[in-house]
Amino acid sequence: MEIKAKTLPSALAERLPVYYRHVKTMAAEGRKRITSGILSEKAGNTATQVRQDFFTCGGTGSNMTEDLEKWFEKTLGTNKKKNVIVIGAGNLGRAIISYRDFEKDGFFIEAAFDSDLSYEGIKVCDVPILNINMLESYLSQNTVDIAVITTPAEAAEKIYGKLIKGNVRGIWNFSPCDLKSTEDCVVRNTMLTDSLLTLSFRMKERNGG
Amino acid sequence: MEIKAKTLPSALAERLPVYYRHVKTMAAEGRKRITSGILSEKAGNTATQVRQDFFTCGGTGSNMTEDLEKWFEKTLGTNKKKNVIVIGAGNLGRAIISYRDFEKDGFFIEAAFDSDLSYEGIKVCDVPILNINMLESYLSQNTVDIAVITTPAEAAEKIYGKLIKGNVRGIWNFSPCDLKSTEDCVVRNTMLTDSLLTLSFRMKERNGG
Repeated sequence: MEIKAKTLPSALAERLPVYYRHVKTMAAEGRKRITSGILSEKAGNTATQVRQDFFTCGGTGSNMTEDLEKWFEKTLGTNKKKNVIVIGAGNLGRAIISYRDFEKDGFFIEAAFDSDLSYEGIKVCDVPILNINMLESYLSQNTVDIAVITTPAEAAEKIYGKLIKGNVRGIWNFSPCDLKSTEDCVVRNTMLTDSLLTLSFRMKERNGG
Repeated sequence: MEIKAKTLPSALAERLPVYYRHVKTMAAEGRKRITSGILSEKAGNTATQVRQDFFTCGGTGSNMTEDLEKWFEKTLGTNKKKNVIVIGAGNLGRAIISYRDFEKDGFFIEAAFDSDLSYEGIKVCDVPILNINMLESYLSQNTVDIAVITTPAEAAEKIYGKLIKGNVRGIWNFSPCDLKSTEDCVVRNTMLTDSLLTLSFRMKERNGG
């Protein structure tokens, strides 16, 4: 049992991937040990915070880079292959399909779906674009761990119901509507506008406008 | 002076846009007053947290929807038009250019830049794609508030220096390298992989894998 609490604070859940990224970079650079001090410097917080975060997640006591990498893989679930589909094969959908680095962390995009029939039969980076009407039968025949939604809001709400019914366990939602997690499916709403507004807020905070 | 502290906690800076989004939605639905209870329900936290966040930001005492909207516009800086450029006109760059909702919050994409000469002269949603070699002269002739970087990591580091020199005040970085904020320029690193890993972590936390 790696995770002590059922729902850890969201700020912590955001920091873990940042730590992991830096651990991987330092591993690639050949560093054998990583202290909380070094990791906090890279991640832009404090060593105390890093140690606290590890403790909260029932972390490894080791500071060997190799052990840390394995611990993160287990904690973040990247040690298990995940089948991913992308709904919406417009610019954002294609950007995600084309981002092959996801495979390094075990996320394999198997298919994409779109309502635009002119896309049907096209492959983007070897990923076939299927007719959105095929979604339900695809879900009944294939295990899908994660679905990425890149459609407009109206389409997203309809698709959401089909994904839940089709036993998808995770939804990465880029459409501008808040979808809710269920008992079996975790939803992560990633609103690009929110991210831009946070930047704008920081600019205002920094130099007044 | 709306902002009391110079650097407010990052979790708060992430929550403000979420509140604002829900305030705008409720305004569009015709709601005249919004209590902290209603807002917390929409944002998925507690009324106490909402009140605390408002207090921390020197918030309006009013619960009139109209006042709240104005307060958010001022706090997030969306009441001032911002000139935006996009570096990298691949799938992700085009997705951002095509996302016209940004204009509703005052973000106007004026130009895009790419090293792929075959894009030169093309317009995406009326936004011209310029040769990346034009970036420095563009920055010397135009006021750019925000630059969005959607290039690979190597290109991003070179471009970063030019943007800082060109007095860009905000950088929204999607490239997989951590760029640092300077005294005059706020950088927001938005790593898509981190977001996917946080989802994966939550899935692991929820049902073990």
